[in-house]
Amino acid sequence: MFAEALVDADVHGTATHGLTRLSIYLERIQRGVIVPDAALTVLRKTGGVLALDAGNGLGQVQARRALDMLIPLARENGVAAATVRNSQHFGAVSYYCNLAAQQGFILMAMTGCEPAMAPEGGYEPFFGTNPIAASFPTGKGYPVKVDLSTSMVARGNIIAAQKKKALIPLGWALDPAGQPTTDPSQALLGTVLTMAGHKGYALALMVEMFSSVLSGAAVGPAIGSMYKNLDRKQDVGHFFCLFDIAAFLDPAEFETRADAMIDAIKGSRKREGVEEILVPGERSARNAAKNEAVGVPVSAETLSEMKQWCARLHVPFALSGIGA
Amino acid sequence: MFAEALVDADVHGTATHGLTRLSIYLERIQRGVIVPDAALTVLRKTGGVLALDAGNGLGQVQARRALDMLIPLARENGVAAATVRNSQHFGAVSYYCNLAAQQGFILMAMTGCEPAMAPEGGYEPFFGTNPIAASFPTGKGYPVKVDLSTSMVARGNIIAAQKKKALIPLGWALDPAGQPTTDPSQALLGTVLTMAGHKGYALALMVEMFSSVLSGAAVGPAIGSMYKNLDRKQDVGHFFCLFDIAAFLDPAEFETRADAMIDAIKGSRKREGVEEILVPGERSARNAAKNEAVGVPVSAETLSEMKQWCARLHVPFALSGIGA
Repeated sequence: MFAEALVDADVHGTATHGLTRLSIYLERIQRGVIVPDAALTVLRKTGGVLALDAGNGLGQVQARRALDMLIPLARENGVAAATVRNSQHFGAVSYYCNLAAQQGFILMAMTGCEPAMAPEGGYEPFFGTNPIAASFPTGKGYPVKVDLSTSMVARGNIIAAQKKKALIPLGWALDPAGQPTTDPSQALLGTVLTMAGHKGYALALMVEMFSSVLSGAAVGPAIGSMYKNLDRKQDVGHFFCLFDIAAFLDPAEFETRADAMIDAIKGSRKREGVEEILVPGERSARNAAKNEAVGVPVSAETLSEMKQWCARLHVPFALSGIGA
Repeated sequence: MFAEALVDADVHGTATHGLTRLSIYLERIQRGVIVPDAALTVLRKTGGVLALDAGNGLGQVQARRALDMLIPLARENGVAAATVRNSQHFGAVSYYCNLAAQQGFILMAMTGCEPAMAPEGGYEPFFGTNPIAASFPTGKGYPVKVDLSTSMVARGNIIAAQKKKALIPLGWALDPAGQPTTDPSQALLGTVLTMAGHKGYALALMVEMFSSVLSGAAVGPAIGSMYKNLDRKQDVGHFFCLFDIAAFLDPAEFETRADAMIDAIKGSRKREGVEEILVPGERSARNAAKNEAVGVPVSAETLSEMKQWCARLHVPFALSGIGA
């Protein structure tokens, strides 16, 4: 499951959450701050709800197990929800969205993350980039997949600017003194701004409530950093809510209605210079189609890290079909 | 219930959704495009899910009834969800948030609205300003209440600029030809931009999926306009998901954890010029405290409309304690 989740991110074009992260997960396992074979414990079970404890296991594995447990509950109750505490960064939310949609369910997913954003008006890192995701099956060959962080931009964009020695636009981040900055290095020491100011703050808070407060996980600044805190667990919390379409509407009717909406959106008049209107999830599906045909691009750095880990763990490094 | 919902909006400082709307609701009732005594019909009931038809009744009344029906279901199942089709503009989402929080539940609420925003890259009105709301009980004397439209700004701000003959900032709206505009009149004929570009578009689409597609209500441009389409129903859809905290965590522990988060946020270092960091819901609670003490401000225009309606309906106009 762990490998599948990482590769799924690369396949769908979210390389930032794919194999490039393998090294840090292995590092954390070796240091004992991730327990790879941890059980997923049911703390509470009420009708359609599961309160789960991941036992400091791998986020991808425990979140996938939680989703697998929710599916029969949602089928029975029409709706089912789970919180997971004591977990880790669980990779790309898109992975769980794809799984739920493949089985015909609507999923809403959120997760806490290590601190990066301040509340509106502040400048101390408090919230993570707290993503909200939702996926909906369609008859288009791909699910509609909403998947967004509540930050102005992903931290990855600031890191990319730093590597290119470029400036970042004002409005992306604040420096450690709380002043607007165009210097990516200062931004990385400071805070990322929430999307749309107070609206992003409100959404980040909503995610924190569901994922961190309600789950019993660490909240805000108490969440451990994957890269910086190698001596302690992250205690990340996740939240899933799964809906069985058949409880609301005939699934065939839902599909017809969703497809008609997609057609109407894509057929909508375009602004000057816009070639195509995409629906959320379409680009991800196109990436997957391309990558499944020609192979997943893996950076030289990631390949080198994988070889080093194979040597360190006395595992033969044997990948077939690696291109340039 | 209808009057209560309107007054609740005024009390909490959301005058745009309060008594100022009474006139248009009455107008629509008189024209037969709202059925004030419509039944709320259960189309499907599965475990924790209700699929409801509002029979073209008043949005505020039918949505409140839907919420009242969900409460025992959420208590039994831990989580319960409802869609409502064939409804109208249901006023301020804040009203339902307050009700759920008063009874100790977490509510997530969404609703479709008449078309105002284009998908990212387009310029035809498709989505409404599709709000997302969520409320969480706390021990602070007010619930945390996330309540935001997925548009850059509320249409009300553009109307206000038009009345003041002021310009609006670039980035708020497009004119009818799809060009950025600072002219509020052109903006009102065109489209309001989504908040944070493609992110707001994705969230608006999520709201449309839950509220309109899944409910079986009208979708996108098919939703009737409250003010412009006086000859036909709106067919708005709503979506509620209600969570019983006790299914996840001891409610007292939830309250302690939520309060600790609020304290940490409010105690966070402030940016230059910021006097206080507010949590979402705090301003609304302060408005309510003030308005309950000194009375709700009602505009001369709204008062005059109410007097005219009283005359038209042969009802005595008798309000006590009206100030200047």
